[in-house]
Amino acid sequence: MTAPLRLGIAGLGTVGAGVVRILKTHPDLIATRAGRPIEITAVSARSRDKDRGVSLAGFAWEDDPVKLATRDDVDLYIELMGGSDGPAKASVEAAIAAGKDVVTANKAMLALHGQELAEAAEARDHVIRFEAAVAGGIPVVKALTEGLAGNEITRVMGVMNGTCNYILTRMESAGLPYDEVFAEAEALGYLEADPTLDVGGIDAGHKLSLLASIAYGTKVNFGAMDLEGIERISIEDIRQAADMGYRIKLLGVAQMTGRGLEQRMSPCLVPATSPLGQLEGGTNMVVLEGDAVGQIVLRGAGAGAGPTASAVMADVIDIARGTRLSTFGQPATALRPARGAEASVSAPYYLRMALVDKPGALAKIAAVLGDAGISIDRMRQYGHDEPTAPVLIVTHKTTKTALDEAIAAMGKTGVLSGDPVAIRIEEV
Amino acid sequence: MTAPLRLGIAGLGTVGAGVVRILKTHPDLIATRAGRPIEITAVSARSRDKDRGVSLAGFAWEDDPVKLATRDDVDLYIELMGGSDGPAKASVEAAIAAGKDVVTANKAMLALHGQELAEAAEARDHVIRFEAAVAGGIPVVKALTEGLAGNEITRVMGVMNGTCNYILTRMESAGLPYDEVFAEAEALGYLEADPTLDVGGIDAGHKLSLLASIAYGTKVNFGAMDLEGIERISIEDIRQAADMGYRIKLLGVAQMTGRGLEQRMSPCLVPATSPLGQLEGGTNMVVLEGDAVGQIVLRGAGAGAGPTASAVMADVIDIARGTRLSTFGQPATALRPARGAEASVSAPYYLRMALVDKPGALAKIAAVLGDAGISIDRMRQYGHDEPTAPVLIVTHKTTKTALDEAIAAMGKTGVLSGDPVAIRIEEV
Repeated sequence: MTAPLRLGIAGLGTVGAGVVRILKTHPDLIATRAGRPIEITAVSARSRDKDRGVSLAGFAWEDDPVKLATRDDVDLYIELMGGSDGPAKASVEAAIAAGKDVVTANKAMLALHGQELAEAAEARDHVIRFEAAVAGGIPVVKALTEGLAGNEITRVMGVMNGTCNYILTRMESAGLPYDEVFAEAEALGYLEADPTLDVGGIDAGHKLSLLASIAYGTKVNFGAMDLEGIERISIEDIRQAADMGYRIKLLGVAQMTGRGLEQRMSPCLVPATSPLGQLEGGTNMVVLEGDAVGQIVLRGAGAGAGPTASAVMADVIDIARGTRLSTFGQPATALRPARGAEASVSAPYYLRMALVDKPGALAKIAAVLGDAGISIDRMRQYGHDEPTAPVLIVTHKTTKTALDEAIAAMGKTGVLSGDPVAIRIEEV
Repeated sequence: MTAPLRLGIAGLGTVGAGVVRILKTHPDLIATRAGRPIEITAVSARSRDKDRGVSLAGFAWEDDPVKLATRDDVDLYIELMGGSDGPAKASVEAAIAAGKDVVTANKAMLALHGQELAEAAEARDHVIRFEAAVAGGIPVVKALTEGLAGNEITRVMGVMNGTCNYILTRMESAGLPYDEVFAEAEALGYLEADPTLDVGGIDAGHKLSLLASIAYGTKVNFGAMDLEGIERISIEDIRQAADMGYRIKLLGVAQMTGRGLEQRMSPCLVPATSPLGQLEGGTNMVVLEGDAVGQIVLRGAGAGAGPTASAVMADVIDIARGTRLSTFGQPATALRPARGAEASVSAPYYLRMALVDKPGALAKIAAVLGDAGISIDRMRQYGHDEPTAPVLIVTHKTTKTALDEAIAAMGKTGVLSGDPVAIRIEEV
C-alpha cells in the first residue's frame, strides 16, 4: 500500500461534516478501493467549537483556509466554504500555487472564475475536480466528462435546483400560490440566505454553465446564459399545464447551435409522463444526449450532507487512484470562447392571456400570430364571470424572436388585459 | 500531444462497426479530450468482405484475433466478438500475456472468467475495462466503481435486458400472450441466437454478477445467482399486477446480507409509478443505492451500435487519458469469495391461484398462510364461469423460505387447481 493521501478540508458545514463522517465510517473500504489510505490531516471553519456531530480530534486546526491550503502535510485541498470570491477563491489559488490538487463543491466560484483557476492548476499539472458542485450526489460531471467522452454532445438538460422543484411540485400538489409555498420553503430552511440564488435560477444556472463547458469544449460563460427564475409562475399556469398533460419545471438546457452556444435556465413545460415531468420534490435530474449514446437520464438527491459528500469523495478517490483529468475534460487552454447565442432553437410555446370581452378579440390575437408566422396547435377559451376572458394557446414550433415580436404586436391590438404569459415547451 | 493510442479491434458486428464509426466521425474531438490521438491499427472479424457500412481501408487485417491481440502495433485490444470462451477468451489471455490493456463488451466471459482474467492483467499492471458489457450506453460501471466509491453500497437493482422488457411491456400494451410476443421479438431480431440467454435471465444475470462484484468487493459468482426467466409470466399476471398498481419487470437485485451475498435475477412486481415501473420497451435502468448517496437512478439505451460503442469509447478514452483502475474497482486478489445466500431479504409477495369451487376453500388457504406466519395484505376472489375460482393475494413481508413452505402446504389442502404463481414485490 502506497503513502496516504492527506486531505485539508476548509468548511465544515453540512457537506464538510458529511465528508468527515464518510472517512471515519469507512476508512478500510475506501483505502481498499483507492489503493491507499485517505486521511484528514487538517481542517478549517468559522467556528472551532460548534457541534457538528463528528469529532475533529486528531485533525490540525487552521483559522485561515489559505494557511490550511498551503500546509506541507496537505496533498489535496478540499474547499467546501462556498462563495464565488473571498476566502474560497483565495484559498484555492493558494493551494494551486503551493502545488496541491483541489476538490470543490463551489459552483459559483467555478462559474465565474473556473477558466482562470483551471488554467493555473493545469499549468502546474494539478487538477481541480468539482463533482459535488453539480446535482449533489449524481455523478454527472463524471458521466459527461468520461462516460460520454466518445460522443458529440447534442443537448444537456437538467432540473438542478431542488428548492425550485420542491416549490413547483408543492404548488401543484397543494394547490397553493407561489408566495405561500415560498414562505413554507423559507421556514423549512430550504432557501439560500439570498433566495434569488435559488428561485432566480442563478444557482442552477451556475451548474448548467459548468456542464456546458465540458459538453461543448467551451470556456464557462455564465454571463451569456438566458436566465429566468420561477417567481412569476402562477398556480393558474401550473393547473393549465397539468390539464394539457404538462408540468412546469425550472429546466436548464444547453445546446450548440449554428449561431453559438445556447444556454437557458428558465421555467419550461415538459410532458407530465416524461422522466423530467415526473420528478417530485427536491430530487435532481440531468439528461445528457449524445450522437452515439442517445439519451441518458440520471436522477438522484441534489443536495444534503450524504449525497454531496459522496460526490466529494468520488473526486478524492479518483485523485488517490491516480486519475488525472483536466477540469473541463480537455486542457483549459484548448477551450474555445463560448459565443453566446440568442435562443434560436425553435420550440412550441404555451401562452396564457386575458382578453377583453369584445366580439372579434380572439380573432385579432389569432391574426397577430398568423402574421408572425406562428401557427396554433391548440387554443382554449374558458367560460368566465369576469369582464375578461381567459385564453390558452399552444403554438407549433416557433422561435423566441418571432414570439416576442408577436407578443409586442398583441399589446397593440387593444384586446389584451394585462401581459400574456409565455412559457417554452421543451421536447424531452 | 503525446503518442497515439493504437487499437486492435476484434469483432466487427454492430458494436465493432459502431466503434469504427465514432473514431472516423470525431477523431479531433476525441484526441482533444483524450490528450492524444486514438487510432485503429488492425482489425479482425469472421468475414473480411462483409459490408459493414464503414470502410476498413488503412487498418491491417488479421484472420486470427489472437494474432491481432499480440501485434506490436496494438497498445489496447478491444474484444467485441462475444462468447464466454473460445476465441474471445483466448485472445484476451493472449493480449494480457503480451502486455496489452483490454476493453471488452463481453459479459458472459467476465461473469465466468473475470476473476482469472483480472488477476492475470493486474499481475502485469494492465487493465481490463468493460463498461459496454453492462446496460449498453449507460455509464453504470463507472458510476458504481468511481462515482459512488465513497459509499457502502446497500443495493444494486437493474432492468438490464431490453428484450425482456420489450416483451413484458408489449404484452401489457397489446394484451398479447407471452408466446405471441416472443414470436414477434424473434421476427424483429431482438433475441439472441439462443433465446434462453435473454428470456431465461442469463444475459441480465451476467451483468448483475459483474455489478455485484464491484459493489461488494467480492469475486464474481454468477453460479450463486438465483435465476428465473420471464417464460412463465402470463398476460393474466401482468393484468392483475397493473390492476393493483404494479408492473412486472425482469429485475436484478444484489444485496449483501448477514448470510452472504444475495443475487437475484427474476420477475418482480414494482410500483407502476416508480422509475423502474415506468420503463418501457428496450430501455435499461440501473438503480444504485449507497449509505451516503441514497438512491441514484440511471436510464438509457441498453443495446444498439451507438450506445454500446459509446461505452467502449469511454473505456478507451479513460485508458488514453492514463486512468488505470482495477477491473472490479479494487485489486482482484483483494476480492473476497462471494458466499451465495439463499434469498433471505424478506418482501411482500403476489400470489395467484385457482381454487376448486368448494365451501371453505379460501379459508383453508388463509389458514395455511397464517400457519406459516405469513399475513395477508390484500386478497381478491373474482367472479367466474369456470369450475375454479381465481384468487389473488398480496402478502405482507415474508421470506422466500416461508413462502415456499406455505405453497407446498397449500398443495396438500386439496383445494388448489394447478400450481400457484408467486412473484416477489420489490420495494424500490
